Amino acid sequence: MKLFVYHTPELTPKDQVPDCAIAVDVLRATSTIATVLSAGGEAVQVFSDLDELIAVSETWPPQKRLRAGERGGGKVAGFELGNSPLDCTPELVEGRRLFISTTNGTRALKRVQDSATVLTAAFINRAAVVQYLLEKQPETVWIVGSGWEGSYSLEDTACAGAIAHSVVEKSQLPPEKLAGNDEVISAIALYSQWQDNLLGLLHHASHGQRLLRLECHEDLKYCSQTDVLTVLPIQQEAGVFKTKN
Amino acid sequence: MKLFVYHTPELTPKDQVPDCAIAVDVLRATSTIATVLSAGGEAVQVFSDLDELIAVSETWPPQKRLRAGERGGGKVAGFELGNSPLDCTPELVEGRRLFISTTNGTRALKRVQDSATVLTAAFINRAAVVQYLLEKQPETVWIVGSGWEGSYSLEDTACAGAIAHSVVEKSQLPPEKLAGNDEVISAIALYSQWQDNLLGLLHHASHGQRLLRLECHEDLKYCSQTDVLTVLPIQQEAGVFKTKN
Repeated sequence: MKLFVYHTPELTPKDQVPDCAIAVDVLRATSTIATVLSAGGEAVQVFSDLDELIAVSETWPPQKRLRAGERGGGKVAGFELGNSPLDCTPELVEGRRLFISTTNGTRALKRVQDSATVLTAAFINRAAVVQYLLEKQPETVWIVGSGWEGSYSLEDTACAGAIAHSVVEKSQLPPEKLAGNDEVISAIALYSQWQDNLLGLLHHASHGQRLLRLECHEDLKYCSQTDVLTVLPIQQEAGVFKTKN
Repeated sequence: MKLFVYHTPELTPKDQVPDCAIAVDVLRATSTIATVLSAGGEAVQVFSDLDELIAVSETWPPQKRLRAGERGGGKVAGFELGNSPLDCTPELVEGRRLFISTTNGTRALKRVQDSATVLTAAFINRAAVVQYLLEKQPETVWIVGSGWEGSYSLEDTACAGAIAHSVVEKSQLPPEKLAGNDEVISAIALYSQWQDNLLGLLHHASHGQRLLRLECHEDLKYCSQTDVLTVLPIQQEAGVFKTKN
């Protein structure tokens, strides 16, 4: 297994996909995906285009769907949810499909959607992703951060580091054997430095600060927890994620 | 002072330059620049194009010039030096101008050459750069890594982190006040994790591994030393660096 970390989808090598791709958008798309599937949601379907989301979700029975999305910091009219994973309670999501629009998260997912396997990861379901890698041993693995408007993001890189750190620890492979690029070593260092204070790290992150200004303290707290959900979101068809099994 | 770290020149914001730019190419251009100026070289003039280097250096008296450059891993015919800083002894460089061609290092320097102040940094002269920042307090500072063929490089990011780490320590500014982007926090974490084993880090770096295959062990050892030279290379005219004073 060779692991590659890419800070943003734009930095991935052109005209290639890996055997296994892991998209990360800690704040908040991939944290939400894990939460919804863990709470019994039927699936999560991801869109970059709001109009396309509306068109597709309209073909779905209203009692079987939920729609989540924000524009300009506010919930879209007619949608049940904004972008907070905390709203995705079992009572609400059980048996329903979440149609979600997310600018940054979707770019990473689109970039890797043709890979044989596409997973999503956040701190909250890190262990499930690591377990999959150790069991399946895919030859090439890309962890792709979403970043923020094309820029590097601290939280996605730290989550990539959390995955790599745990694979190293559990496989007893030396990091230099596992690492396919320099970013892996750096992501492991970032996670190692901050693993006991991930909430503090999210407070330093520019996207974290943006969410704090929007009064999303509880979201940051929730998204900074590690290994609290056992769910593994895996792509079934382009843009549609379900739990493994 | 706001500090921004950019992993490669391509990732800097378009159509802007900072008050003070710091170009980093630890392996090996900026390590060589510091070494030559510290050893009494008159100046270092940097070129991306080998033919341009040859044309300009031909106008210079042979006893006043040195030429350094490699193509395909070997020294250019007629040049006195390859790319190893270890060859830049005081006996050789005293009073002479070094004309140097370096693919990766030059891209970072070109990108920022219109900034009011352009410095070059490596681990070996880190303290001199930090002292300049603390004395002059430029409003915006960019530290721009050279990377390797447009990709992230571990050694340049760690050097950026070494600078930021020391500015934080000496100014008593909290990192979040100093940091203009997420990359700063991450670079500090990378340096903090590896500061006692920078040679080990260079051995992990993909460009470090490339140099090890070319039998450049001693270069890596030399470039991994911190604060051993007090020289501050500062741009006098586009592409020409001299010591401050």
